[in-house]
Order: sequence, then structure tokens, then C-alpha cells
Amino acid sequence: MSNHEYGRAFGIWRDSAQADWEIYTHHEYVEQMANGTLPEAQFVHYLRQDYVFLIHFSRAWALAAAKAGTLEEMATASATVHALVHVEMPLHIATCAKQGIDKEALEATTELPANLAYTRYVLEAGYSGDFLNLMAALAPCVLGYGAIGARLANVSGPYEAWFKVYGGEEFQTLCRDVGALIDQALVRRLGENWADLPRAAELAHQFKTATRLEQGFWDMALTPPPSDP
Amino acid sequence: MSNHEYGRAFGIWRDSAQADWEIYTHHEYVEQMANGTLPEAQFVHYLRQDYVFLIHFSRAWALAAAKAGTLEEMATASATVHALVHVEMPLHIATCAKQGIDKEALEATTELPANLAYTRYVLEAGYSGDFLNLMAALAPCVLGYGAIGARLANVSGPYEAWFKVYGGEEFQTLCRDVGALIDQALVRRLGENWADLPRAAELAHQFKTATRLEQGFWDMALTPPPSDP
Amino acid sequence: MSNHEYGRAFGIWRDSAQADWEIYTHHEYVEQMANGTLPEAQFVHYLRQDYVFLIHFSRAWALAAAKAGTLEEMATASATVHALVHVEMPLHIATCAKQGIDKEALEATTELPANLAYTRYVLEAGYSGDFLNLMAALAPCVLGYGAIGARLANVSGPYEAWFKVYGGEEFQTLCRDVGALIDQALVRRLGENWADLPRAAELAHQFKTATRLEQGFWDMALTPPPSDP
Amino acid sequence: MSNHEYGRAFGIWRDSAQADWEIYTHHEYVEQMANGTLPEAQFVHYLRQDYVFLIHFSRAWALAAAKAGTLEEMATASATVHALVHVEMPLHIATCAKQGIDKEALEATTELPANLAYTRYVLEAGYSGDFLNLMAALAPCVLGYGAIGARLANVSGPYEAWFKVYGGEEFQTLCRDVGALIDQALVRRLGENWADLPRAAELAHQFKTATRLEQGFWDMALTPPPSDP
Repeated sequence: MSNHEYGRAFGIWRDSAQADWEIYTHHEYVEQMANGTLPEAQFVHYLRQDYVFLIHFSRAWALAAAKAGTLEEMATASATVHALVHVEMPLHIATCAKQGIDKEALEATTELPANLAYTRYVLEAGYSGDFLNLMAALAPCVLGYGAIGARLANVSGPYEAWFKVYGGEEFQTLCRDVGALIDQALVRRLGENWADLPRAAELAHQFKTATRLEQGFWDMALTPPPSDP
Repeated sequence: MSNHEYGRAFGIWRDSAQADWEIYTHHEYVEQMANGTLPEAQFVHYLRQDYVFLIHFSRAWALAAAKAGTLEEMATASATVHALVHVEMPLHIATCAKQGIDKEALEATTELPANLAYTRYVLEAGYSGDFLNLMAALAPCVLGYGAIGARLANVSGPYEAWFKVYGGEEFQTLCRDVGALIDQALVRRLGENWADLPRAAELAHQFKTATRLEQGFWDMALTPPPSDP
Repeated sequence: MSNHEYGRAFGIWRDSAQADWEIYTHHEYVEQMANGTLPEAQFVHYLRQDYVFLIHFSRAWALAAAKAGTLEEMATASATVHALVHVEMPLHIATCAKQGIDKEALEATTELPANLAYTRYVLEAGYSGDFLNLMAALAPCVLGYGAIGARLANVSGPYEAWFKVYGGEEFQTLCRDVGALIDQALVRRLGENWADLPRAAELAHQFKTATRLEQGFWDMALTPPPSDP
Repeated sequence: MSNHEYGRAFGIWRDSAQADWEIYTHHEYVEQMANGTLPEAQFVHYLRQDYVFLIHFSRAWALAAAKAGTLEEMATASATVHALVHVEMPLHIATCAKQGIDKEALEATTELPANLAYTRYVLEAGYSGDFLNLMAALAPCVLGYGAIGARLANVSGPYEAWFKVYGGEEFQTLCRDVGALIDQALVRRLGENWADLPRAAELAHQFKTATRLEQGFWDMALTPPPSDP
């Protein structure tokens, strides 16, 4: 198993969304970051949208804790929220500050439709469905960044810090933990043969839709931003 | 199949909650209605609490429509909400008026804990889980009243109108429809062998808990009411 | 008051989103329908996406019934769901059939990101917020179609039936009812001076965001569709 | 301001629920703990039910993080979940172990109706309403234990450790923080004069209902438990 393999459900879902998964994880935006040709303005644009994204993404993990079926699921979900809110977001604010965007500018970022589409899709999948629907919709973000990071961990150039974060051991461990959480949650509710049940198709469809929305996020990140304050 | 059989899931869930199901559907309150010894004040008390109950029960069916997975599920759930809000509740208000309780008095009813416990349990099961969790928690109300009505449809005495409603063909048809909705929803998501999956235990547990909360509702209905306006 | 005025909140919200409201309600797609230059394939594309939209929009109104604060709110919301599911959607299916799209093809439509973005935004606003948040996010759809219909009710040409529906008395009455529902819901919760409260900015922001997502829906409808079955 | 005063909203809500608040915070169960006459079996019964309570209470705080309107609200809510899941619950498990109840026995505890009624009321208030509804329903638990602890912090006897926890500086600080969170959340959404708005009555009603459900929890704790494994 290579280090970007994050469990059984991930393998099944990724295979069923293969063409879309490739487009997402090998997106032109990622390639321009990797080869260093991405204009800094586009990186700043991405950072700002990603800040708004992280707020809603944290809310989605909080919803996962509210919908957890075991103390263990609750512990993993709440630890993730805690890490996002008390570690990632302050780090993100610091990174943006280095790029000359202060916290007020960050907060004033207009959330673009392609950004909003993904987080609301995830949250709504969670509210209308159960813990598993939420996990299937969340997975492409966490595990896709993991796959990109694992593939490009050793990139050098202006964006190497970004790749080091997502390719680094800490984030890769998180990905394996999330993959294991998902696998256990599936088996705990639906049994070892969950992949044969009708519900499996619904979950794979949500994973695929979320993967397409991640493509849309990169498309947006490549597009010159509107003039924000 | 007797006319109080409402499908496969109902049979499985009822059997797994058997002792509690018996207590609920043969509760002293029901027996006193059937043999005509129930004091009218206790019936009025029940009607008032049931009015508040119906509001939240309608909300739960509306949530079912929001969480439906197919147009057919949505159509059944929304037809049920419509019948509850536009037929049952006006009927309930009319029945209460005959007992000398006007609409303002009805609206001023203090929702008692045993009443609230059941409806909030149902709604929360639906919000935190999916359509199936909502159905498992809703079922004891609809199908339990159906079972009581089917058993005692021919009772005469002061409360015969009540038994005629729940034992009548219209309500019995609704029960069979709800039973079929549940069976189809289970198979559609979890396949024919859903009863063998771990989730089956969770759903049976919710059915049983809701059955116990229905017992609590009857206990409350037998207890002299607090002095409401 | 002209017949496309639907109450006080609508006026306030529309004014605060003025530029976006104009783009949405005078969108190129609408103008091409009005002057008859819209290619039929683009209309079929729109109808198919709108079918998927209506499913989620019905779910949003069902959620409104679940979140209603009074019987009256519940009655209006549940009547809307009922009309959508039992009247609008069968009508939509019939219209599509005339265009040669049978029900199976309709069901097989791939929900595009710009479509999904709006309905999930609405549903999530409702789940995460309260009845008012849901109303603010729903309003641009109902009332925007009302405004377009009122302005262009007398258009003739290949799409005149479409304009007659939304400009017709039945739909205009629905718009006034929804406008009144919103105004009453606001006053009932926040008092006559609700527009001066901090929450008013949040609601106006949601109305504006939803208006932008409606623009995105028209943009999508103008774009040649992907090849669906 | 005495050290059991936790802010403006708390004062308003407690005053509007005064008789019920007194019954809750001076309940016979509390008095028997304070004077040392409570049978140990009843304390163990309470601990077991409280364990189940804490699981759902943590879920409610996680829902608060999902429904937060600012990063600050999210940070407070998620820190509370984290403390509950990663500190309080392990502590609770340790306390129970000292009383001879191992983790399996704890997990096998049957959740009683009076326990369930409160947590589901809170969660449902949160799901159906917004962040403020959730706070109003959560407040009586956190702040009521704070009030009891502050009043009886210096009790000695078999239950002094319990009183020291809730009367201790750490828990009192938490209460003040929660009180401040609520005050800020109200002002941020509804302005300084929120207490004059119609919504204030709804929130006070939820606080009062939750206070009554806390009474029911103590009633249950005083009642000999059913025979659990």
C-alpha cells in the first residue's frame, strides 16, 4: 500500500470516480503550484477563498461530532474541529499575513459560488442524511489534498511549503485516521459487506459529486479574482 | 395476515419490543376508554396534550419530506403533512370545541414533559440520523394507534367515536401505506436483507424507545392534569 | 404598488441587492426566451435542470414546515410543498414529455454545480439557521420568477406559455402570499422594527447570495449542456 | 454581582422562570447530596444516567459549533466539546470506576425517559431553531449546576467532591464564559435591546422548559433505578 492509500472505502469511492478524481488531483492549478509558474496573485486568491472554506469545513466536522454514533467517532470528529479552529485557522491567518492580507481583509473576502457550492453540499448532505453521507461528502477534500501532498511532497519552489504541509507526516496521518474512521463507521452500521448494498451507490455518488465540486474550486482558484477589499 | 399487520419492518420491530408494545397498546388508559370508565376530564386532558403533540408530529412528517430519497417518499410524506395540518388538526380543534375547549385554550395548553419527550425524540432522531431513523421513531405512534383501533374498532360507549377513527378503514389504510413506505425505504437503501445488518439493531432500538415514550404519554394522560387556563 | 411588489421585506432585500437583482431578473437567458431567440435545446436543458431543482426546492419548503413557528406558517409551507410535489412536478414532467424527454431521461439528468449550489445553499441556510434564514434564501427564486413573469406576462412566441405561468394570477398570488408569510414571520419574531436589527444584515446578505446563485443558474442554462442520456 | 451571576441573559431568563429555577436548583436530590443523606445507590444511578446525558450534551455543543455565526462562537463551542469529550467523559468514567461501575456497565445503561427528554429537547431546539435557541435550551444545565455549585461549594461529607467540581473556579469560569457567549450572541444578532423583541419570550420559554426538564432529571435520580446490567 502506497502512502496515499487511506483505506478501503476510499479505494472504492476513488475508483468509482476515477476520471473526475484524476482531474481534481492533477488539476492545472496544482501543476502550476508544483512547477512554480502560478502567479502569486492567484495563490493569494486561493488563500482567501480557502479561509472562508475552512470556516464552513470546520462547521461540517462539528456536525459530524453531533451526528456521531459512538464516543470514538465523536472524539475523532471533535479533535478534528479543535485542530481546524484552534490550529489550522490561526496558521492560515498567519500565512495570509505574510502575503500582506490582514485578518480584516480575510474576513471581508466574498465567498465565491464555486467555493460555497462545495461546503454547502457537504453540510446539507450531512444534515439531510446521516454520519456516512457527511463522511462521503467530506472525504474528497481531506483525502484529495492528502493524495496531492503525497505525490508532490518533494516539490521545491515558491509553493514548496504548501506541499510540505499536505505531504507531511502529520497530514498523512490525519488522512489515514479519517480513512479508518470512515471504514469503521461503515462496518459498524452496515456490516463488512456494505459495498454490496444499494446505499453504497448513494455514497459513491456523493463522493463523486464532491470531487467535481473540488475541481470547481481549483477552476475558481485559477480564475482572476473579483476585486475584493 | 390480520388487519393490524402493517408490513415486514413493523413485524420485526414490534416483536423485538414485544413486552413494551403490549404495555403501550393495552395501556390502562386505552382500556378505560374502551370500557367507558375513563373520566371525561382525563379525556379532555388527553385531547389538549394531543393537540400539542400533533403540531410537532406534523413537523416530523415535514422533516421526512425534506429527508426523502425519492419523489415517491416525498409524495407520501408531504401528503401526510398535508392531511395532518389541513384535515386532522382542524378536526381536532372541532372535537375539542365540542368538549368546551376553544382554540385559545388549546393553544395555551402547557406541553407536559412526557408529551414533549416523545416528539422531540422523534424529531431529533430524524435530524441526527436519516429518513430511516425518522421512520423507526415515528412508527410506534401511527402503527400503535392503528393496532389499538383495529383491536377495539367495535367498542361502544362514550369514546366509541375515537375508536372508530383509528379502527376505521381510512386510518387502517394509512397504516398499511406507512408500513409499505417503511419497507420500501429500507429495501431501497439497505437491500432485501436489511434485517441482518448492524443498523437493524439501531432502528429496532429506536422503535422500542419510542414505544416506551408512548407508554409515558398514556401514563401522563391518566394523571390528573395541572391547572391550565 | 405594482403587481410585482410582494411586501416589505422583499422591497428591503431587493433594494439591498439591487445590481445583482437586475442581472438576475433581466438575464440574457430570460431576454432570449422573451424575444424568442433561445434555441430549443437550451430550453430543454433548462427544463431538465429545473426538474432536479424542483425536487430540492420542495425539500426546502418541507424543511420550512418542520421549522415553522405557528400553525399558520406550517399550513402555508405544507400547502406549498403539496402544490410543488402533487401539481408542479407532474406538470413539469408533462411539459418535458412534450419536448420528448421521458421521465427516465429526466431522472437521469446530471445535476450541474450551478444548480446544486443554489438548492444546497438554501437547504443549508435553513438547517443551520432558523425559519427566517430559510425564507431569505428561498425568496429570490419564488419572487424573482414572479418579477420576471409580471414584467413579461404578455410576451408571445415559442416561450409564451412559460411567461404565462409565472406572470399569471395564480403564481402572482403565490408570490404575494409568500411575501406576506415572510413579513409576518419577521414581525412575529423580531418586531415591527426588525429592519434596524443586526440580523437584518444577515438576512439581506443571504437574499443577495441566493440572487447571485440564481444568476449562476441562468448562466448554466445558457451554456450548452453536457451530453446526458 | 455574586459569583453565581453569569450575565444579563441569564438574569432575565432565570427571573422569568423563577419558581421553576428554585425547584431545580434546590431540589431534594441536591439537598440530600449536600446533607449527606443520599443513599449511595442513588448517586450511582445518577452517575450512570449522567454518563448517557453527557454524550448527548456533547453532541449539542458540537451542533452549536456547526451553527456558530462567528469564529469566536465556533472556538468557544468547539473548546467546550473538546473539554467534554476529552476531559469530562474520561473523568466521569474514572469516577464511575471508583464506584464499581466499569465502562461496559456504563455503556449498557438504559437511558430513562426523563434523561432523554432533556437532551432531545435541547438538540431539537437547536436543529429546528438557530444558535440562540440552542443556547437558551443548554443554559439551564451549565448555569444551574454552576448556581448549585456556587451555593454549596463548601459542603463536606460523602458528596463534597461533586460540589467542589461545580463550585470550583474552573467550572465557575466556564459558566461566566458561557454566560458571556450567550450575551454576545444575542447582541450580535438582535442588538442591545433584544429583551424587548418578541423573540425574547420564545427564548425565555425554552429556558423555562429546559429548567423543568432538569427538575425531571433530579426526580428521576431520586427514584430507585430499574435493574440494569
